[in-house]
Amino acid sequence: MGPLPRTLELFYDVLSPYSWLGFEVLCRYQNIWNIKLQLRPSLIAGIMKDSGNKPPALLPRKAQYLRQDIKLLRQHFQIPIQFPKDFFSVILEKGSLSAMRFLTALSLEHPEMLEKVSRELWMRVWSRDEDITEPQSILAAAEKAGMTTEQAQGILEKISTPKAFGLPITVAHVDGQTHMLFGSDRMELLAYLLGEKWMGPVPPAMNARL
Amino acid sequence: MGPLPRTLELFYDVLSPYSWLGFEVLCRYQNIWNIKLQLRPSLIAGIMKDSGNKPPALLPRKAQYLRQDIKLLRQHFQIPIQFPKDFFSVILEKGSLSAMRFLTALSLEHPEMLEKVSRELWMRVWSRDEDITEPQSILAAAEKAGMTTEQAQGILEKISTPKAFGLPITVAHVDGQTHMLFGSDRMELLAYLLGEKWMGPVPPAMNARL
Repeated sequence: MGPLPRTLELFYDVLSPYSWLGFEVLCRYQNIWNIKLQLRPSLIAGIMKDSGNKPPALLPRKAQYLRQDIKLLRQHFQIPIQFPKDFFSVILEKGSLSAMRFLTALSLEHPEMLEKVSRELWMRVWSRDEDITEPQSILAAAEKAGMTTEQAQGILEKISTPKAFGLPITVAHVDGQTHMLFGSDRMELLAYLLGEKWMGPVPPAMNARL
Repeated sequence: MGPLPRTLELFYDVLSPYSWLGFEVLCRYQNIWNIKLQLRPSLIAGIMKDSGNKPPALLPRKAQYLRQDIKLLRQHFQIPIQFPKDFFSVILEKGSLSAMRFLTALSLEHPEMLEKVSRELWMRVWSRDEDITEPQSILAAAEKAGMTTEQAQGILEKISTPKAFGLPITVAHVDGQTHMLFGSDRMELLAYLLGEKWMGPVPPAMNARL
């Protein structure tokens, strides 16, 4: 028995093409070097905000350089990386929030699938110019990576948030129907939907306990 | 046996005071009404971005209204809600990314702790004007809510990202030391750190497989 493998943690976002390069290189070396690779999906938007740094593509000169750089790296790394057509919309408007939340949940629930699903998401956004923001896009990536529809759907449900304009949102499932209520001032309406009695924000059962 | 409980999903962010109101009311009613309450931590920043909506506090008139509204609601709801002193910094600059990632991971790994830890985070930011962005703040909330230090630390490690200016980041743990490498072009340096051989981005073992 040789020495214990060293742990390597790789923090990445599928929105970042350079993350993809690092990811593939470490995946290739994980069975060559004496390492234990731990994949850590992370939201790049949060990091950029935290540091005050700007994505390189936002600076025009850097963006030009980036295109050339990626073209060369594609060959050298043998990774089918390709600029999305509407680059700014993909990176700045659409982002990767849902995809990265999906990968974070995956790393907790099915860590053995993380490598393949991450790669599939990069193939979508950074090779085939496909969407990664819609639930069906993420499902497609998960299934292509070998997850069952049930597994993928299960994760997706846990991370999904209804499209709305703020929080809190209450989603009530009543008699096969789904009702979405926005705000903390819809609780009386909620009681009505449920056929329950509204007793104000501090119900008597709770008063008794105080 | 009565009818089956209806499922209620509550989507919330601990940065949102109105989310807190909805949360407490539904927690109070969860044993009074015939419901099954499912807590869904969600990042409000993502929702706002998605919808193009602005947090109410960003609009000066709304901000003024908000202060009065919260003061009244505090009494009516009997929730010790209190404006943080430096409101703008807390909401706009500091945000809740780490706290909400912690709660998301918690909902997958220790769902039974979700209610108490969420409440503790609200108590910090929206009652006692305490930080919720630093790892030690989140740890303190988790421990106060009844988690063991090991449990909380375990979750925190899974969601933590090193402070840096972009991705990918590789963290190598070698001989008790931690090295952080930024970028996909530091792999040769990584090999050096590990005492392994760098064979370029497409190592021979992989070539053989192609």
